[in-house]
Amino acid sequence: MIIVLKPHASEDQILRVEELIKKKGLEAHIVRGEEMTIIGCIGDTTAVDSRLFEVDSAVDKVMHVQEPYKLANRAFHPDDSIIDVSGVKVGGEHLAVIAGPCSVESYEQVLEIAKAAKASGANMIRGGAFKPRTSPYSFQGLGLEGLDILCAVRDEVGLPIVTELMSPDYLDVFNEKVDLIQIGARNMQNFDLLKQLGKVDRPILLKRGLNATYEEWIMSAEYIMASGNENVILCERGIRTFESFTRNTLDLQSIPVLNSKTHLPVIIDPSHAGGKWWLVEPMAKAAIAAGANGLMIEVHNDPDSALCDGAQSLKPEKFDALMKQIRQIAAVVDKRI
Amino acid sequence: MIIVLKPHASEDQILRVEELIKKKGLEAHIVRGEEMTIIGCIGDTTAVDSRLFEVDSAVDKVMHVQEPYKLANRAFHPDDSIIDVSGVKVGGEHLAVIAGPCSVESYEQVLEIAKAAKASGANMIRGGAFKPRTSPYSFQGLGLEGLDILCAVRDEVGLPIVTELMSPDYLDVFNEKVDLIQIGARNMQNFDLLKQLGKVDRPILLKRGLNATYEEWIMSAEYIMASGNENVILCERGIRTFESFTRNTLDLQSIPVLNSKTHLPVIIDPSHAGGKWWLVEPMAKAAIAAGANGLMIEVHNDPDSALCDGAQSLKPEKFDALMKQIRQIAAVVDKRI
Amino acid sequence: MIIVLKPHASEDQILRVEELIKKKGLEAHIVRGEEMTIIGCIGDTTAVDSRLFEVDSAVDKVMHVQEPYKLANRAFHPDDSIIDVSGVKVGGEHLAVIAGPCSVESYEQVLEIAKAAKASGANMIRGGAFKPRTSPYSFQGLGLEGLDILCAVRDEVGLPIVTELMSPDYLDVFNEKVDLIQIGARNMQNFDLLKQLGKVDRPILLKRGLNATYEEWIMSAEYIMASGNENVILCERGIRTFESFTRNTLDLQSIPVLNSKTHLPVIIDPSHAGGKWWLVEPMAKAAIAAGANGLMIEVHNDPDSALCDGAQSLKPEKFDALMKQIRQIAAVVDKRI
Amino acid sequence: MIIVLKPHASEDQILRVEELIKKKGLEAHIVRGEEMTIIGCIGDTTAVDSRLFEVDSAVDKVMHVQEPYKLANRAFHPDDSIIDVSGVKVGGEHLAVIAGPCSVESYEQVLEIAKAAKASGANMIRGGAFKPRTSPYSFQGLGLEGLDILCAVRDEVGLPIVTELMSPDYLDVFNEKVDLIQIGARNMQNFDLLKQLGKVDRPILLKRGLNATYEEWIMSAEYIMASGNENVILCERGIRTFESFTRNTLDLQSIPVLNSKTHLPVIIDPSHAGGKWWLVEPMAKAAIAAGANGLMIEVHNDPDSALCDGAQSLKPEKFDALMKQIRQIAAVVDKRI
Repeated sequence: MIIVLKPHASEDQILRVEELIKKKGLEAHIVRGEEMTIIGCIGDTTAVDSRLFEVDSAVDKVMHVQEPYKLANRAFHPDDSIIDVSGVKVGGEHLAVIAGPCSVESYEQVLEIAKAAKASGANMIRGGAFKPRTSPYSFQGLGLEGLDILCAVRDEVGLPIVTELMSPDYLDVFNEKVDLIQIGARNMQNFDLLKQLGKVDRPILLKRGLNATYEEWIMSAEYIMASGNENVILCERGIRTFESFTRNTLDLQSIPVLNSKTHLPVIIDPSHAGGKWWLVEPMAKAAIAAGANGLMIEVHNDPDSALCDGAQSLKPEKFDALMKQIRQIAAVVDKRI
Repeated sequence: MIIVLKPHASEDQILRVEELIKKKGLEAHIVRGEEMTIIGCIGDTTAVDSRLFEVDSAVDKVMHVQEPYKLANRAFHPDDSIIDVSGVKVGGEHLAVIAGPCSVESYEQVLEIAKAAKASGANMIRGGAFKPRTSPYSFQGLGLEGLDILCAVRDEVGLPIVTELMSPDYLDVFNEKVDLIQIGARNMQNFDLLKQLGKVDRPILLKRGLNATYEEWIMSAEYIMASGNENVILCERGIRTFESFTRNTLDLQSIPVLNSKTHLPVIIDPSHAGGKWWLVEPMAKAAIAAGANGLMIEVHNDPDSALCDGAQSLKPEKFDALMKQIRQIAAVVDKRI
Repeated sequence: MIIVLKPHASEDQILRVEELIKKKGLEAHIVRGEEMTIIGCIGDTTAVDSRLFEVDSAVDKVMHVQEPYKLANRAFHPDDSIIDVSGVKVGGEHLAVIAGPCSVESYEQVLEIAKAAKASGANMIRGGAFKPRTSPYSFQGLGLEGLDILCAVRDEVGLPIVTELMSPDYLDVFNEKVDLIQIGARNMQNFDLLKQLGKVDRPILLKRGLNATYEEWIMSAEYIMASGNENVILCERGIRTFESFTRNTLDLQSIPVLNSKTHLPVIIDPSHAGGKWWLVEPMAKAAIAAGANGLMIEVHNDPDSALCDGAQSLKPEKFDALMKQIRQIAAVVDKRI
Repeated sequence: MIIVLKPHASEDQILRVEELIKKKGLEAHIVRGEEMTIIGCIGDTTAVDSRLFEVDSAVDKVMHVQEPYKLANRAFHPDDSIIDVSGVKVGGEHLAVIAGPCSVESYEQVLEIAKAAKASGANMIRGGAFKPRTSPYSFQGLGLEGLDILCAVRDEVGLPIVTELMSPDYLDVFNEKVDLIQIGARNMQNFDLLKQLGKVDRPILLKRGLNATYEEWIMSAEYIMASGNENVILCERGIRTFESFTRNTLDLQSIPVLNSKTHLPVIIDPSHAGGKWWLVEPMAKAAIAAGANGLMIEVHNDPDSALCDGAQSLKPEKFDALMKQIRQIAAVVDKRI
């Protein structure tokens, strides 16, 4: 942490700031210039709230040098984390391919899609049982019934299931039944929920909030990890920008950036980002070429009558064709499904 | 709702879409042009999920004409809603002036600030007991102890209290003790929490999410209203943009826009938006000049040692000077405290 | 400038960076910590390209402490600049009130509007002769004919005229005829044009680019000033954000921020920001309450048939009513027209 | 174009709007509903300014159905445009690979880089002679001298050259000497310059503005095309978002979106987007996987001492390794260099 003092800060003021630094267990190195004085703070600043210094009337600004996260930090854990999702490995060279309908509609629907997806190479099945909808008047998902459908399909098809948790009330039932618990973009900074996820045995799929910086996103993973659950997979699903033709702007730079900052796996959801099925194929290929640890793709057997988000779903045939190209690109960048 | 079909849609396809429209209880008016066919849908489209049409392979796009909200809609409730917060009126010509520290630190601290704020003209007291913090290692608030301090200050000073609810676990205790329950920006689309607020007797202060559109913000109010609680006050606190010198960009156009779209009161929080105390005064004056129904301002007796966000707090003397100008500007735009 | 070295930078590397710093005429103060080494650079860094250090393989990041602008910098010119526009003062307590149609359509049109605007309190007349239009097929303005109409109205009404320059080809004619030369948002970083404005005798009204940071905006003013013309007025006209209901988001925090960073006057254009006439009144009042040095407002005698942007123009009666409230609010914040 | 009238519009008002529509050469189809009346306008609306209708007091909103561009529109030119750059084909299956230093520094520098780049597979050479810099105090490029260096390298190496034009003053010399004239992001809406490019014989490389929507970007190409030069290549180089760790957010969805809307080739510049050399490789591969028609990559033989943007340049060895993977990925998606 570097503290820049205001021009013409007095010796008394400098001393006051220096003492505050020492009180926080840090060393203070003072650099006096003609026009400004800066203080370099040496030590572990992760748990030091920089606002404490910013409010001092002699301080101009506080600049961070160290990352504010530890458990998620690549610097302290140089090797890729490999997350085990009920036997499926995610991270390093192992790609997750999560496919399934936006919403769980019926056992037959999910089963048919799951079988086709598995045949094409998917290694996990997704489906929304509890749906976050902007309008209270929109379909909100089948709830616990949807969850049971997913479990029945898992038993039949033999692939782990992924579905979104929206309420702490269902924490126990998700922990019992769901292989990979998804936290949606809108709950990325629902800190109350994040803390409770520390008590869960299952790995967590943490989606990036629509306006979350890389650092905020990793800090939300850190919340879960600091609460006791270190098995977190990050999922980019588009950020909100001025461009409104696409639902969101898919930020694929997040892949190399996150890989440099954290050891956690990063997967990409091209279906929600673009909101149009014909954007899914090129973006899925791009994600793998950029080094993503996996994909989350909406597949639907009858997109024309899907209860939600059919417009962004691939038909099984298209998903199958896509997977063939994905395999080829994965080989170029040393990944495998 | 207007449905634009793809160029060269066949008569069979047009018929299929027409039938789907009728099945949803709407009337369909077909406009056939040489290059395109459009269908105007007449009727109540609020509860119709437009995605149902977008996924049809014959449909090019669906355009909305009606707003997707009813209870919050100015069109159906032309008069301003006046929300009663334990005797303090908010809305129409009545201004809310909510002041207090960012975090509750001690009874003495809150009491001193509350007395000063009341003397300057504040009519509600704020203070954070549960704090949403980006880092799990930052101070998270005094919790229930902080809530009890706020209650004790209310009893002493005689002004309603406002504080943030982060977890459904505390719904009952907030309903019992808090006059105006705040939902923070990060929970604006925590739909599980919003639904539960319908059961509460207290009015709700709903902050705008950092990347929420006007429509999404009103839809979150609609969630609370549709669940049974129609007493919602909206609070703009800045949106996230490319500009990073200020913490957020305060969107004061939200005041006239929201006033045209909804009958709910709109207040402004200039402290969190800018993140710097010297931005609070000009923005508070601007908000009132633009027609806001109130202000939420951080006041601290010792910003230099505040546990959080001291940098954006006004000292009581500055708050007092500000209130004098606020009263003058309020008079120009026919508002009163 | 503060240079943070990579962890474990060698003594040789530190020495190399130190020498590069000295070669640029700066002093280097090295702070060695266990985990990192930082170097404080003391001296005038305005003309030093920080990229030179960023590319060094031993450097982790370079942090700026000093502002990169000099001539526009409040720190070196503590007093407000008062810009003289053909006799009308702008800056400090003097408010500019610039009114007129979006486009010059005819002598009669501009004259009628100018007379009404002057009667209501406007002290400059605006009107577009050359129009920046997104589409090559839209009306592009009357060009030089429009300029002559503006001049004729000036002679008749006795107020300075403001109009936009888009091409360096017209630099001489604008210098001869236009009292205040406007540079539009889309040309804010047309550096070739900015440099040429240094040769002009007339003051410049520099609009903020739709995605320009405060610093970039001031740097564009610095371009003009460094080229020889120190008479620059800044004009905020909204920035582009995710919110699309309004044309742009008007950033009124720009007023106090710019006032702290630069001595140049800052005026507000609420007409272009919102794109709707009913947003102009509340935002104009808010701008003055926030301390703006003036307003630029579209007024049209027949908005229903305006050739461009009629939707955002006020009728003269509404402008007159607005000016009455503006005067009252100006008095509260110690400004006058 | 669809015109939605205000609720309770009178028959007189409807008639007035209908007449205005007919006056513009369009057919009007009126759909009367209980709560609203909409008018479908049939005909060529490209040259109709929708503002003309928006300002009518009976009109609620105007919705566009047709794209506002013609010459650049894929709908009217279904086949991919193949642009010939002095013998190098760009578009369809033909990939452009443009490599070279950010700034031209010397003949030796450019020659060495150009030879290495060609050996690795580049088919055009880039280098900045005139540099758009945020600060007037930064290095502004070698100007005409730099242009001559580029020409000399072209003669030696035998590859077309690409460089940025900032001023209409140099239009003739660029037309004479430069194979592919680049228009930078900051000049994307410098309409005066765009119009003049219509007179040039050389193809144009049009970079996307930092805050330009897809439609605005295509409209800027349409300006050039409508002025007489149909040889335009589009170049995505990142957009400005709230995320500031990367210089800009690279929007790879632009590739499939632009491919659906326009027949013009789309290439990607990963160097400027991210601003860090280690983001270039993964993003270049992602771009090709997503179907881009080419890449523009900064290569430098000595990034540690580059006069600008060295931090984002690849060394020739890294560029060579990248090209090997690019070729493999290109083969998967049916492209070739």
